[in-house]
Amino acid sequence: MTKLWDKGNNINKEIEEFTVGNDYKLDKELIKYDIKASIAHAKMLNKIGILTDEELTEIKTKLSEANIEIKQSDEDCHTAIENYLGEIGKKIHTGRSRNDQVMTALRLYIIDKLKETKELTKTLIKTLEKEDNTPMPGYTHMQKAMPTTIKTWLSSFKDMLEDDLKLIDTQLTILNQNPLGSAAGFGTNLNIDKEITTKELNFSKTQSNPIYCANSRGKFEAQTLHTLTNIMQTLNKLSTDLILFSMQEFNYIKIPKEFCTGSSIMPQKNNQDCLELIRAKYNVVLGYEFTVKNIISNLMTGYNRDFQLTKEPIIKGFKETLKSLKIMNLIVENIEINKDSLQKAMTKELFATEKAYELVKKGMPFRDAYKEIGKEFKE
Amino acid sequence: MTKLWDKGNNINKEIEEFTVGNDYKLDKELIKYDIKASIAHAKMLNKIGILTDEELTEIKTKLSEANIEIKQSDEDCHTAIENYLGEIGKKIHTGRSRNDQVMTALRLYIIDKLKETKELTKTLIKTLEKEDNTPMPGYTHMQKAMPTTIKTWLSSFKDMLEDDLKLIDTQLTILNQNPLGSAAGFGTNLNIDKEITTKELNFSKTQSNPIYCANSRGKFEAQTLHTLTNIMQTLNKLSTDLILFSMQEFNYIKIPKEFCTGSSIMPQKNNQDCLELIRAKYNVVLGYEFTVKNIISNLMTGYNRDFQLTKEPIIKGFKETLKSLKIMNLIVENIEINKDSLQKAMTKELFATEKAYELVKKGMPFRDAYKEIGKEFKE
Amino acid sequence: MTKLWDKGNNINKEIEEFTVGNDYKLDKELIKYDIKASIAHAKMLNKIGILTDEELTEIKTKLSEANIEIKQSDEDCHTAIENYLGEIGKKIHTGRSRNDQVMTALRLYIIDKLKETKELTKTLIKTLEKEDNTPMPGYTHMQKAMPTTIKTWLSSFKDMLEDDLKLIDTQLTILNQNPLGSAAGFGTNLNIDKEITTKELNFSKTQSNPIYCANSRGKFEAQTLHTLTNIMQTLNKLSTDLILFSMQEFNYIKIPKEFCTGSSIMPQKNNQDCLELIRAKYNVVLGYEFTVKNIISNLMTGYNRDFQLTKEPIIKGFKETLKSLKIMNLIVENIEINKDSLQKAMTKELFATEKAYELVKKGMPFRDAYKEIGKEFKE
Amino acid sequence: MTKLWDKGNNINKEIEEFTVGNDYKLDKELIKYDIKASIAHAKMLNKIGILTDEELTEIKTKLSEANIEIKQSDEDCHTAIENYLGEIGKKIHTGRSRNDQVMTALRLYIIDKLKETKELTKTLIKTLEKEDNTPMPGYTHMQKAMPTTIKTWLSSFKDMLEDDLKLIDTQLTILNQNPLGSAAGFGTNLNIDKEITTKELNFSKTQSNPIYCANSRGKFEAQTLHTLTNIMQTLNKLSTDLILFSMQEFNYIKIPKEFCTGSSIMPQKNNQDCLELIRAKYNVVLGYEFTVKNIISNLMTGYNRDFQLTKEPIIKGFKETLKSLKIMNLIVENIEINKDSLQKAMTKELFATEKAYELVKKGMPFRDAYKEIGKEFKE
Repeated sequence: MTKLWDKGNNINKEIEEFTVGNDYKLDKELIKYDIKASIAHAKMLNKIGILTDEELTEIKTKLSEANIEIKQSDEDCHTAIENYLGEIGKKIHTGRSRNDQVMTALRLYIIDKLKETKELTKTLIKTLEKEDNTPMPGYTHMQKAMPTTIKTWLSSFKDMLEDDLKLIDTQLTILNQNPLGSAAGFGTNLNIDKEITTKELNFSKTQSNPIYCANSRGKFEAQTLHTLTNIMQTLNKLSTDLILFSMQEFNYIKIPKEFCTGSSIMPQKNNQDCLELIRAKYNVVLGYEFTVKNIISNLMTGYNRDFQLTKEPIIKGFKETLKSLKIMNLIVENIEINKDSLQKAMTKELFATEKAYELVKKGMPFRDAYKEIGKEFKE
Repeated sequence: MTKLWDKGNNINKEIEEFTVGNDYKLDKELIKYDIKASIAHAKMLNKIGILTDEELTEIKTKLSEANIEIKQSDEDCHTAIENYLGEIGKKIHTGRSRNDQVMTALRLYIIDKLKETKELTKTLIKTLEKEDNTPMPGYTHMQKAMPTTIKTWLSSFKDMLEDDLKLIDTQLTILNQNPLGSAAGFGTNLNIDKEITTKELNFSKTQSNPIYCANSRGKFEAQTLHTLTNIMQTLNKLSTDLILFSMQEFNYIKIPKEFCTGSSIMPQKNNQDCLELIRAKYNVVLGYEFTVKNIISNLMTGYNRDFQLTKEPIIKGFKETLKSLKIMNLIVENIEINKDSLQKAMTKELFATEKAYELVKKGMPFRDAYKEIGKEFKE
Repeated sequence: MTKLWDKGNNINKEIEEFTVGNDYKLDKELIKYDIKASIAHAKMLNKIGILTDEELTEIKTKLSEANIEIKQSDEDCHTAIENYLGEIGKKIHTGRSRNDQVMTALRLYIIDKLKETKELTKTLIKTLEKEDNTPMPGYTHMQKAMPTTIKTWLSSFKDMLEDDLKLIDTQLTILNQNPLGSAAGFGTNLNIDKEITTKELNFSKTQSNPIYCANSRGKFEAQTLHTLTNIMQTLNKLSTDLILFSMQEFNYIKIPKEFCTGSSIMPQKNNQDCLELIRAKYNVVLGYEFTVKNIISNLMTGYNRDFQLTKEPIIKGFKETLKSLKIMNLIVENIEINKDSLQKAMTKELFATEKAYELVKKGMPFRDAYKEIGKEFKE
Repeated sequence: MTKLWDKGNNINKEIEEFTVGNDYKLDKELIKYDIKASIAHAKMLNKIGILTDEELTEIKTKLSEANIEIKQSDEDCHTAIENYLGEIGKKIHTGRSRNDQVMTALRLYIIDKLKETKELTKTLIKTLEKEDNTPMPGYTHMQKAMPTTIKTWLSSFKDMLEDDLKLIDTQLTILNQNPLGSAAGFGTNLNIDKEITTKELNFSKTQSNPIYCANSRGKFEAQTLHTLTNIMQTLNKLSTDLILFSMQEFNYIKIPKEFCTGSSIMPQKNNQDCLELIRAKYNVVLGYEFTVKNIISNLMTGYNRDFQLTKEPIIKGFKETLKSLKIMNLIVENIEINKDSLQKAMTKELFATEKAYELVKKGMPFRDAYKEIGKEFKE
């Protein structure tokens, strides 16, 4: 190769860095799932006679004790595992390709993380159940509209999250199919038994069409990210409300100082940094969703290396969502409702519609009652 | 007002045009759902004593015969209906607001269109079931990889669409809640019975929290568009394959001339316009999804006029998806498989992995067999 | 063709509708530019001897009187023109293709519209120059921070728009190259003289590489839309401020009622609909930008039919931006500053930093002064 | 604080982690620019009498020797610098805030990186100048269209990059204004002289309106990312072509093996990984652009913590673009043109238009000539 490039051999290094990218770091999240899937694969290879019992035991022992460090030169966790196993590693790749291996590890990872997301969402739902019937102004067009209560306002987010959970459940159903054995997207001529690994890995079914396995890479990540952006959108709206309602001009809500930070220049400030970051993280996770949805656009069937770049968005998407759920839960647990300010805010225009309905109850058509009451508010 | 603006009274017109936008055109799609919901609402008002039996009959008769034209000055179909009804129209708005009215109409529309999407998807699934075991090259990295068949390739899209259907079903479940009666997002002090309209309109439940009703505007549209982009992504990949495989250099597939158009300058051309447009429409529908997901970002609770601009994306999203499904179905029904070209394309490198596995079957570790066979392909 | 499709000949119609799409409507915006470019092209064909003087005169006369209606069966304005011209139309297409024809018309259209955008932006810049030194609270993190003035606040948007103008100018420079004669992206073997049409159409140079001409389709539209989203982002921020500052809780600003609309249920409401729509339209135009940037992704060199779908985003992007600039200008011209509310809002925490700086002026290190003053604001 | 949270004091830690995010890592890229700006700021403070000559010397000495490690507890490089300086650090923050400090550092960083991008783009432009007139098929609609040459094809990318450079230049012009001294977005009541730092830091002017300074955060990053996505789009198209043309079915181009990687299962494969990754990175950088454009949407004037999350997209956007330009340059330097395959690919349909023009030259109207030649290609 030195002949071809006249600029010395650090070019090799550049290309390696370029193709490996962040994989060797990101795969820290995935390696435990890859180990789990590798053991399941080894068991299957043993059952169909490719690995002896001794070989299987060796693999299981080595992998269960493994504390594998992924080096940049390993490219990713899949090669790291094969290298770590040494001689026996040469056999474990029988009947699979890196493509289905990474897909299996990713799928197990996503399922785990979605379940964690579900639990944290449920926790937040509980925290949002506040029996606080303090009246508060309801707004439309960011203008005082009609009266509502703290309870109704907070439980609207509870209901929204309940529906967000339905998206998680569907995603778990779609993901719950085993791609292991699809190899590079065309299976192998080896007589492997995919049902064994499906059972070992607790998948509810086998993803039988190997080309669909390959083509679901990226697509499943995009769907998962959509699930996360829905939760983040709920948190975005709640944050937006909380930031607004804790402005001095409203003062309906007080966020404990522990969630606020100061200013480097203004001695008096208590800024709602956590909430501002949660608000912004909706847009960040949305960015990840669209990145993945773009990457998979206009690509022919089969594995394309482009898919590698869908790994970072999904892993970061989970990190941001899980952290946001945790912090939001802490905040909602600790907000204080300022009843005095709320009471003062319940001004008469909020009751205009109610007054119109009093006329309706006395028999006036609604549109006439509306006009009648409207006169009071003409300047 | 003429005092305020010194440039004459066409400014009023400009503002009207600006706020009405396309609504009076788009609402042609929605008016039948608004009429349906208005009749249900009137029935409920009758049951709780706001409308007499005669008034209800008048409304039902008028609306069932209605052929309402929506003028720009009406702003939207909701006002058009109220204006059309005349005196009785003044009463029908009792207990509802334009906000829940439009939301109800939109929800009924979306449910209908999702069902239509589901049917067309099922039709395409059937069309993709082709018992054609002609061998074809499988590709990874856009390079010949391993052998597959026409049947496996086409049924990979079938399987993908089956999973896309799960997204439709979840979306139908989430949408299936009645927002009518939430009024402007805070209900009314009138004793209306939402269960009646829920039953009349065949919703499976009532969306009880009125603030959640208001905040689900845009969010439900975004979720629906995600469902559509998933289907469009399946069509995008299928189009990409079909365009590639019908290039002269491959010639695996022939698209009937009826789906192709000529060039204005090159006499010989038969271009895959329909497929190119389907491919691009994934990106268009994705653009709609992204638009809605942005519009609802960083907005406080309650109705904001911004939501109006989520109407066009959802209506156009359905139009593009439904048309694409229809055209793709026609194309798949009529493609011809060129067996000769496919046979010629089954070159030896496609079988390299199989050959390695032959050595594995004889007991060689996979990684060694891989290296052994690899030597044949070294240049 | 009837043999192929057993469902009757309306399928032809479906395919025609699918491929034509909205083009025959959108092209109403483009036809005058196409006519202009067609006349320039005819003059050039005359100069190189393809058209006689009589033929040129006939074309010029016919086209300058033209009131061409574009029918769906014409597909687009380019074919409509050729059909309209009759026998002589057969010659005018010499040396060009529909690809460079549409590109030329689009480029002339975009240049015109960008200039219009520039003028309206300049008008708004002038309107924002208000010599109003009323003090107002400055906010960071949506919390009162330090004092500022109405003038400083409004002129910040002026400065931002001045920089946005630089993007317009660059875009005008990039667009100012003539693609006519690049035909389908590979020129022709005819000895045409592109410099003639360049001069006739006032382009500052000829876009010489025909493949670059073809590949700039979509890319130039994306760049233009970025220019528009920058202006819309400035308007988005100004709208967000105006909506917030006209909330009852602030009452710093009053938007004349003419720009507000009422509620269908709440008699007291004056909603900031125009501002909400301008705010949302940033996201809409951003959606258009994103759509175009996706459509052109992962496509091979040369014209692809996907490009057709970049026409609607650019035309609508201009419509939304131009309207928003106009309406925003009217609003800024007519806002009223509520000095009383602003004066009341100038509370002491706004001056904390100033007080710290008084200590700095007396020699205390800033961080110590900050801590000293900070004590006053500890609860 | 322990009273408030009953779950122990690791919650503090969680909040700290949440608000600091990746900043302490990302700021490694920024610290040298922050040091440069801090020295300029200190010089100015010295000139206006806030810092003595000795204090200035101490700051300059300490900072020029600095090898500052940024710890998570420092939050970011700005605090790290203040902490590192010790007692004198208390004074250096006079007349500035963290907001203008980070903005200045970021702006210097972006200017530097844009210049680096410009250089690498120019290098690639040179590399693309290949005097290779080998004929090759030109494609439209991914179908053979008309003849072109290797030179024309490659120089189309050269021309595109030349125009991309114009976007870089404009962005450099817009960025070239000094925000230092705008403090938190409202200046200070201290009599600082911004022209001094403007000169010291080689900015071409001072960004005078402090609110515009604050509001340009995010916006300038979005504009910069647009500049990068334009370059990446050029590389995306070139990659797409190169991947296609190096498929076995074309074999027009050979990418040296050093840029390809093998398969873990298929011994024969040489995959175009580098090109696939460059192709995908367009979508990644586009994702960053849209993330930033979304984050800044619907936010009121003044600093909002949301802006913090625009730092990662811009830093990563540059990393991906710079690496892609380098690798693409290496690839273009080393591609081999396969003249035999290209010659075979020059089939007769490519010449149909030329033949039509031969008839035009003999006096036949173009549309008739087109029909005449078209007959030859009817099946």
